[in-house]
Amino acid sequence: MLTLRHLAIDTVRENVAFLNRNCTRHHAEEFLGLGRVEVRKDARSLLAVLNIVDDPAILGPDEIGLSGPAFRHLGLPEGTPVHLVPPTPPESFELVRAKVAGRALGEADLAAVIRDIAGHRYAKIEIAAFLIACASFMTTAEVLGLTRAMIAVGARLDWKGLSPIADKHCIGGIPGNRTSMIVVPIVAAHGLPIPKTSSRAITSPAGTADTMEVLANVDVPMDRMQELVREAKGCLVWGGHVRLSPADDILISVERPLAIDTREQLVASILSKKAAAGSSHLLIDIPVGPTAKIRSAGEAVRLRKLFEHIGDQLGLVLEVAITDGSQPVGRGIGPVLEARDVMAVLRGAADAPQDLRDRALHLAGRILEFDPAVRGGAGEALARRLLDSGAALAAMERIMAIQGPPPAAARLGSLVAEVPAAADGVVGALDCYRIARIARLAGAPNDKGAGIDLLRKVGDRVRKGEPLYRIHAGTNADFTFAQAHAAEDCGVVLVT
Amino acid sequence: MLTLRHLAIDTVRENVAFLNRNCTRHHAEEFLGLGRVEVRKDARSLLAVLNIVDDPAILGPDEIGLSGPAFRHLGLPEGTPVHLVPPTPPESFELVRAKVAGRALGEADLAAVIRDIAGHRYAKIEIAAFLIACASFMTTAEVLGLTRAMIAVGARLDWKGLSPIADKHCIGGIPGNRTSMIVVPIVAAHGLPIPKTSSRAITSPAGTADTMEVLANVDVPMDRMQELVREAKGCLVWGGHVRLSPADDILISVERPLAIDTREQLVASILSKKAAAGSSHLLIDIPVGPTAKIRSAGEAVRLRKLFEHIGDQLGLVLEVAITDGSQPVGRGIGPVLEARDVMAVLRGAADAPQDLRDRALHLAGRILEFDPAVRGGAGEALARRLLDSGAALAAMERIMAIQGPPPAAARLGSLVAEVPAAADGVVGALDCYRIARIARLAGAPNDKGAGIDLLRKVGDRVRKGEPLYRIHAGTNADFTFAQAHAAEDCGVVLVT
Repeated sequence: MLTLRHLAIDTVRENVAFLNRNCTRHHAEEFLGLGRVEVRKDARSLLAVLNIVDDPAILGPDEIGLSGPAFRHLGLPEGTPVHLVPPTPPESFELVRAKVAGRALGEADLAAVIRDIAGHRYAKIEIAAFLIACASFMTTAEVLGLTRAMIAVGARLDWKGLSPIADKHCIGGIPGNRTSMIVVPIVAAHGLPIPKTSSRAITSPAGTADTMEVLANVDVPMDRMQELVREAKGCLVWGGHVRLSPADDILISVERPLAIDTREQLVASILSKKAAAGSSHLLIDIPVGPTAKIRSAGEAVRLRKLFEHIGDQLGLVLEVAITDGSQPVGRGIGPVLEARDVMAVLRGAADAPQDLRDRALHLAGRILEFDPAVRGGAGEALARRLLDSGAALAAMERIMAIQGPPPAAARLGSLVAEVPAAADGVVGALDCYRIARIARLAGAPNDKGAGIDLLRKVGDRVRKGEPLYRIHAGTNADFTFAQAHAAEDCGVVLVT
Repeated sequence: MLTLRHLAIDTVRENVAFLNRNCTRHHAEEFLGLGRVEVRKDARSLLAVLNIVDDPAILGPDEIGLSGPAFRHLGLPEGTPVHLVPPTPPESFELVRAKVAGRALGEADLAAVIRDIAGHRYAKIEIAAFLIACASFMTTAEVLGLTRAMIAVGARLDWKGLSPIADKHCIGGIPGNRTSMIVVPIVAAHGLPIPKTSSRAITSPAGTADTMEVLANVDVPMDRMQELVREAKGCLVWGGHVRLSPADDILISVERPLAIDTREQLVASILSKKAAAGSSHLLIDIPVGPTAKIRSAGEAVRLRKLFEHIGDQLGLVLEVAITDGSQPVGRGIGPVLEARDVMAVLRGAADAPQDLRDRALHLAGRILEFDPAVRGGAGEALARRLLDSGAALAAMERIMAIQGPPPAAARLGSLVAEVPAAADGVVGALDCYRIARIARLAGAPNDKGAGIDLLRKVGDRVRKGEPLYRIHAGTNADFTFAQAHAAEDCGVVLVT
């Protein structure tokens, strides 16, 4: 027996056990080749990756330490005597091996794999193996099975009779594309419930949750969210509280560093979350462009069909909008700058970015047509009336008021540099990836006031030396870093 | 800048960096979604998986901690001020992504991937992705490219003109199969140089290095090994000192816990090590049986052809022996028991296990025929003469004397239990996997005296209650554990 200790180390979604190299009970070496150990106490058991501690100040020779997540998953108090035994890997991994060898998995197989993943029984290398096996080859039936399996292990929001529940989701990749913050108030103004949960940025300069947080609190617990939707018909909150698809969260924690995202995994991930969120009517936005996630019309159509097929099987009313993803949307990139653009559109300001407005109206129109009372084809005109009449702005103000004030006031970064055109010409292209990266280096989204303010878009004429965009930053280090990157390649292609 | 600290935690072939959650320089959260960080100081840079520390006693808020391996790889002293930057993943991972998407990789591609793996630039999940992509599909040209790439990043033993250098390798899986300890002295007695490096057991009850260590020291540095082969023509040492294929060692550290081993990876792994070991003439032993690694004759032939093809391309003289792997070889399983069987064969004892003797003579005969002076087909008779004349025993004693005495005396486990037949009958099968597991639970190989002594083999008659085998153990816990497992399923199938 070893004494259980909690080591205050967060091993980020991986169960890790720590053993002193001079452990009095076990040869640490004996477990090393196996990669993992199993910690047992009566019926409880935890599989964990093994690390070896050489410093008795961190862990004693008769102790077993568990990292933050592992300690929580085992759920026993410090000081409990526990056994350490050779690991029995999750049985479902046999199915992953079969898939690697070329077998398609059935729905029950996928359910078993996802149950073990959600139950924290897979090491990250096993999750990587599953993801790569799926990325190599996946049947449509497997995509459906995976989506259903992910829904089954999560919570499911209950809107208590409220119906329909509209929702939208953009597959991402286009800087400044903050249409949700305009679409939600328009749809809510019409009276159609649209509870929108969004993520924070991980690799982009802003997620909808980051930008909304410039205007209001987004950290809203589930019960409060339900009230919100009853009162204001819509909300724009951070989805981190709602553990809708815990298996997907774990998969993503491995998928993201590998930067492997396939059509199949994208559809399973999005639709498992939306079905669990209780959405009944869903619009998926797929931007297409040379520097977007989806780069050709053919690819977009294949993705659309997979969304439609899986959506149908899940009983969702699902529409797909394939949109222009050839350049950033609006002018601002970064939370404060994007919030400025959104509010300009909602207020009907003369200088509001037209592309952001048009895009939001188109998407809102398609969602409004989910309402049986709206005539087919009449959605976009209705959306325009709701926006131009100020009803959408009023809805947004109601949502902001109920969600509460932002946790901190955010101001535009005061360090400003203009990036000039190198020659006379016409803007031929804006590289979404490059521009997002420069905005991120300037400090977005952690520094909410940092980012890029685009002064020229595709088709605009510019003379040599005239500014293409402004970089805003809050600290000198970020400012220098972003400028250096912009000097190397500013992401704007001029046709001279 | 953060201050570099060495954390005395061995994260087992994974670079891990530790950051205090309240780091004064960085938002720890900001790196979390990326999975990794890059630690930089001037031209030096290290990619590491990020863990977060919540205990200032382990790591301060202005420090960056590196685990054992990561600290060594960065190679800077504690206290050095270093930068923490968002990670630039290894460029070669783009090739892995291409392979996942279905592209076959060229030799230069595989060289780039293997260089980055050997340079510790891949996280374990990235290595898992590469392994699974290869396991899903691999062309023969890719196997050759992978093997060459692994040879290129390692050391290469130089036998300084000694030629030919004979070697043998068994793909494993059969308990008690200690033919190397008989083959090496026979071949050495003939004067053909055969420097044999072996591994210790990781999941089996004994590796050749574990069993040889009952008789002699096996921990022999490289320079001493070269003298040994000049003096005694052969050696039987542990291969752990010789970093012949560092990339393969890293791949195996991920492959093993995943328990994914394909024909292609097996061939690349073995041949990269043998080519690096400077072997010119190699015999590969492939045991085939219902509980062996290779379960059908067809599978064995496919594996043989791949070995032959890649061996030819590398310029090795390579022969494959497909052998009977239907049951354990000899009687003892576990280091002391196996050493007893080996010495009984070398001494020509009347009760020496005939199957171990026959097998060793067959393999030794095939290696002896690598000698141009030995007539085709005459090798096995020559091997028998070298064994029966005592020349092989003398060669083994010379090898043992030069390698030196074992680090500790090992005695047979004094706790003994006999496992009886449940009925009258004939032994129909012995389950290699099950019997290995029971021997391992009895304490082998860490407890050298633990293991199983088989009293009946396939085809033997037995009466109800008569012993099938004896379990030997050194501690009560292991003894009870092994007995309980044997009671559940002893691994012997009786035909009644």
